[in-house]
Order: sequence, then C-alpha cells, then structure tokens
Amino acid sequence: MPRIVVDVMPKPEILDPQGKAIAGALPRLGFTGFSGVRQGKRFELTVDGEVTEELLEQARTAASTLLSNPVIEDVTRVEVLADNTAEGEQ
Amino acid sequence: MPRIVVDVMPKPEILDPQGKAIAGALPRLGFTGFSGVRQGKRFELTVDGEVTEELLEQARTAASTLLSNPVIEDVTRVEVLADNTAEGEQ
Repeated sequence: MPRIVVDVMPKPEILDPQGKAIAGALPRLGFTGFSGVRQGKRFELTVDGEVTEELLEQARTAASTLLSNPVIEDVTRVEVLADNTAEGEQ
Repeated sequence: MPRIVVDVMPKPEILDPQGKAIAGALPRLGFTGFSGVRQGKRFELTVDGEVTEELLEQARTAASTLLSNPVIEDVTRVEVLADNTAEGEQ
C-alpha cells in the first residue's frame, strides 16, 4: 500500500539537546567527520488505495497541526513513497 | 554545508505505540484517508567540507550502532542532502 512520508525537524534556531548529545558521542566512538547533528521525526502514513491530491492536502494539514509543533518544528517534507519499496531502492 | 540524512524506522513486526496513538487521533481530527501510521527518527549529520565515500561509510556505521537499535529498528536511508536546500526543493 502506498505511504506518505512526513519529515519534521527542529527549527534551526531551536536548541536540540538530543542532537547535541549525539554530536558529542560521535567523536568518542571514533566518528570524527561530523560537525553537528539534528534529530527530528519521520512519519509514514499508510494510505488505503490511491493517493489523491486531496489526501496529500490532508497529510499536509495533519503534518502542520498534529505531527509537528509549529512553534519549534518545521515540516521539511510531505511526499508519496513508491509502493512497497524502501526509500533507497526507488 | 552538506548534510547526511539518516532515517530510522521501527521494524514492521515491532509494535509502535506512538504511531498507533497518531493513527487513532487522525480520524478524530477529521483526517480519514489513512489506515496506519509508523513513527521513526530522522537525523541530519552536518559534514565539514566534502562528503567522501569514507565519511558515508562512517555515517552508515554510526547509523547502525549509535543512531538505531538494530533489535527493534531498521536504518531505511543514509544519503547525502544537497547543499543548503530543503529536501523538497532538490
């Protein structure tokens, strides 16, 4: 069944303590090439049947009202995932 | 600066209570076209300078050891984000 992906990230000006903790842990574990980490959320909404433009609009509205807090987070993506494929295989 | 995106999702056979809660809330808020929701995590690793194959390999290793719990989660994507663009604009 088709899925709609919604990505939500903390706004750039907002402190991200989880990301900071990961950024601090990476060099201690030998991963030295990274200067910063931000942690956000990824949602997969499964759709029954066809993905219509109306359904995408519903997903966009849900993304900005239920799935994210617009005060501290940005919705960075609302997109259809191809049927039954992992994203890397598209 | 270039960023590497890492997506981590709960394995399909693992119960996802957050996703279940969202799936239950959607129809109550008038979003009726969705049959299920899974919630995962999205990381953006900022890279100083060029993204080399070695750095991508580091990111893959970090993804499967530090950023995810391989018992309950799958790394669904490790990919370079184009410089200074939101994903939808690529």
